[in-house]
Amino acid sequence: MTADLTALARRALLACADLARFTETPGEITRTFLCPPSRDVTAYLTAWAQALGLNVRGDAAGNLRARREGPGPDAPTLYLGSHVDTVPNAGAYDGVLGVTLAFAVAEALRDAPLPFALELLAFSEEEGVRYGVPFIGSRALVGTLDELLPLADAQGISVAEALSIYGLDPTELPEAAVTGQSLGFLEFHIEQGPVLQAAGASLGIVTAIAGQSRLLLEWTGQAAHAGTTPMPHRRDALAAAARFVVAAEDRARTTPGLVATVGMLSAQPGAINVIPGTAQATLDIRHERDEVRQAALAALLTDAHRLARERGVSLTVTEKMTQPAVPMDGGLQTRLRRAAAEEGLSVPDLPSGAGHDAMILAGRMPAAMLFLRSPNALSHHPDETVMPEDIEAALRVGVRFVQGLAAHTGGQP
Amino acid sequence: MTADLTALARRALLACADLARFTETPGEITRTFLCPPSRDVTAYLTAWAQALGLNVRGDAAGNLRARREGPGPDAPTLYLGSHVDTVPNAGAYDGVLGVTLAFAVAEALRDAPLPFALELLAFSEEEGVRYGVPFIGSRALVGTLDELLPLADAQGISVAEALSIYGLDPTELPEAAVTGQSLGFLEFHIEQGPVLQAAGASLGIVTAIAGQSRLLLEWTGQAAHAGTTPMPHRRDALAAAARFVVAAEDRARTTPGLVATVGMLSAQPGAINVIPGTAQATLDIRHERDEVRQAALAALLTDAHRLARERGVSLTVTEKMTQPAVPMDGGLQTRLRRAAAEEGLSVPDLPSGAGHDAMILAGRMPAAMLFLRSPNALSHHPDETVMPEDIEAALRVGVRFVQGLAAHTGGQP
Repeated sequence: MTADLTALARRALLACADLARFTETPGEITRTFLCPPSRDVTAYLTAWAQALGLNVRGDAAGNLRARREGPGPDAPTLYLGSHVDTVPNAGAYDGVLGVTLAFAVAEALRDAPLPFALELLAFSEEEGVRYGVPFIGSRALVGTLDELLPLADAQGISVAEALSIYGLDPTELPEAAVTGQSLGFLEFHIEQGPVLQAAGASLGIVTAIAGQSRLLLEWTGQAAHAGTTPMPHRRDALAAAARFVVAAEDRARTTPGLVATVGMLSAQPGAINVIPGTAQATLDIRHERDEVRQAALAALLTDAHRLARERGVSLTVTEKMTQPAVPMDGGLQTRLRRAAAEEGLSVPDLPSGAGHDAMILAGRMPAAMLFLRSPNALSHHPDETVMPEDIEAALRVGVRFVQGLAAHTGGQP
Repeated sequence: MTADLTALARRALLACADLARFTETPGEITRTFLCPPSRDVTAYLTAWAQALGLNVRGDAAGNLRARREGPGPDAPTLYLGSHVDTVPNAGAYDGVLGVTLAFAVAEALRDAPLPFALELLAFSEEEGVRYGVPFIGSRALVGTLDELLPLADAQGISVAEALSIYGLDPTELPEAAVTGQSLGFLEFHIEQGPVLQAAGASLGIVTAIAGQSRLLLEWTGQAAHAGTTPMPHRRDALAAAARFVVAAEDRARTTPGLVATVGMLSAQPGAINVIPGTAQATLDIRHERDEVRQAALAALLTDAHRLARERGVSLTVTEKMTQPAVPMDGGLQTRLRRAAAEEGLSVPDLPSGAGHDAMILAGRMPAAMLFLRSPNALSHHPDETVMPEDIEAALRVGVRFVQGLAAHTGGQP
């Protein structure tokens, strides 16, 4: 390996800082789907790709695609990348670092022969900010974007209209879909959690994108006077809800890998001296194995109904969303693990509790993710950061991963 | 007893309906301190009192006081009454029934000689709606109203100004205070709770006005991603708060007579997929014995701090209000119990979880309360009701009570 990977890792980090300047809101980083600063991002990455001699195009979903062709027209393609949109007042690395690292890998291997094509992807949308639904960019590559085209944003502009206004042609979306043989997709991404920091590891290999269920629970008891209503006479909706919060925490604590969160809780009428007659809470429950999540959820709802019934309180449960787990490709995980070992790195396996573009591409090709340690688990926050040595580690593993794949694929017809 | 108590009980009930017509808000019963309809209430009660040959005056706090003088200038006074203000959109009986029953007792005993004076009280304010602080009317009788005179209502009008605007003279407040020997104060009031209905009893004798503490609790943990933060890494403020709600319910359930209520609970940032970083709750805890309440509160706060600490969450506790218990007079309770027994009634003892004017007058004279059953525990609600037979029972016990006191007092010099 002749390329100076330390310098290239620095380049990937500096590119994040460069891209952070392109924002809708001065003083912070905010870059939603198809906002004007997206054009600056495209221009920046296009210039970098052209310097690497890649073929650059924008597809009809606003994704930037920079391609190094394979040795022949039938050569398979390896995809690398992530997204370039952000949440409001974001950090500089969520998504963007996965793109700049993909470019750095391509630059590191610029002069190395590869038996496959390499396509760098900068997805236009992943965060779901503008349309409330995420993955608009990566959905175009697997052909499932059409169903989202009628969605309207806060101004009433549909996805299809937004594409047209930006100068794109929604009728060309079919051409954005991946064709031909795909070797797989590798996404670098910050962990956005505390696991790697706690393990003292720079990197981690994602085993699966956790499946999740989101529910709304509503309890109805009887509001009553806090002073004149003895305990046995109460039908306290908040007491039933609080027992549920405790049950959810207890179940998640005793079920390895399960996370359960009550993020919202409210009670009415909401006076210091009135027993709450109604209460509402949300539940977000996730696990990398669907059967574990489903069993835990069923047991938890049984608990919730019992805890309500014991208090003369009724409970209704509404399922807001269910998303099955998406396992990452076992072969690519093995290859990442081997690449890390070659670099002398110990890389824990971990599930991703959050959704990522790799989850979408997994519907079309083998997909894998390499997580970079998130200091203090900060993300979706202006103080989000990444350690330079972890970026270099990711770059080294990424380069070894592609090289390993090349050695393997090279042996095939 | 020659008076037709059945007819008089009906009169007391109908008078509540009559008074319900005097309201600030058409279609509901709303009568706050010194509102214009208060004059109609005064006129109505004045006419009734004059028909009974009583001396009627309004004092400087807006209270109506109808007096039957005693046999001599040094005769002691027995006070009967309650308040005539209401909460917004109130029922027809809270307070008002205690006044109309007092008038009915006086009417029943109109022709009976009594060795003491009888003073009927219609307090101008008890609910605390206009000034946020209750008992303005009864405080004038014990000389503790002065400290409230500077308080401002929502329009910035002080209590003193409001009295003047209504045509009263705050400098005459000292003359509103009770002077001379007081035999005691008896207040009829609806229970506003479920105890008597559950016991199948028309009436109950109040042992004490429960003491109460009100607190605000605030937990501070760390907001974090619901998907990427494993359970052991969480500092979930809402989980700590929910454990506290459960601990409060458990402690009240296992401490006889204790009631503990969390009426308000909120958590931030309040998103379905974000672990709450902060949470706030209120606690209202009451018992008729101060040492029981204080011990339970101390234990509960110890629990709360431990439950927070276990989660890496900090907790601050602010005491908003503490009010000691006020025992009702033992002698008057015995006399009520005897009167009820003479009427063949079984009357449970019970504490009052809510404050009442009797609590204020207890600072100056022996005080007692007779509770009337509250169907379905409804109060502070337009559907609040009282059973006619319970009103008659209360009237009969009240008359016997006064007669018993007369027989007793008559034997004294």
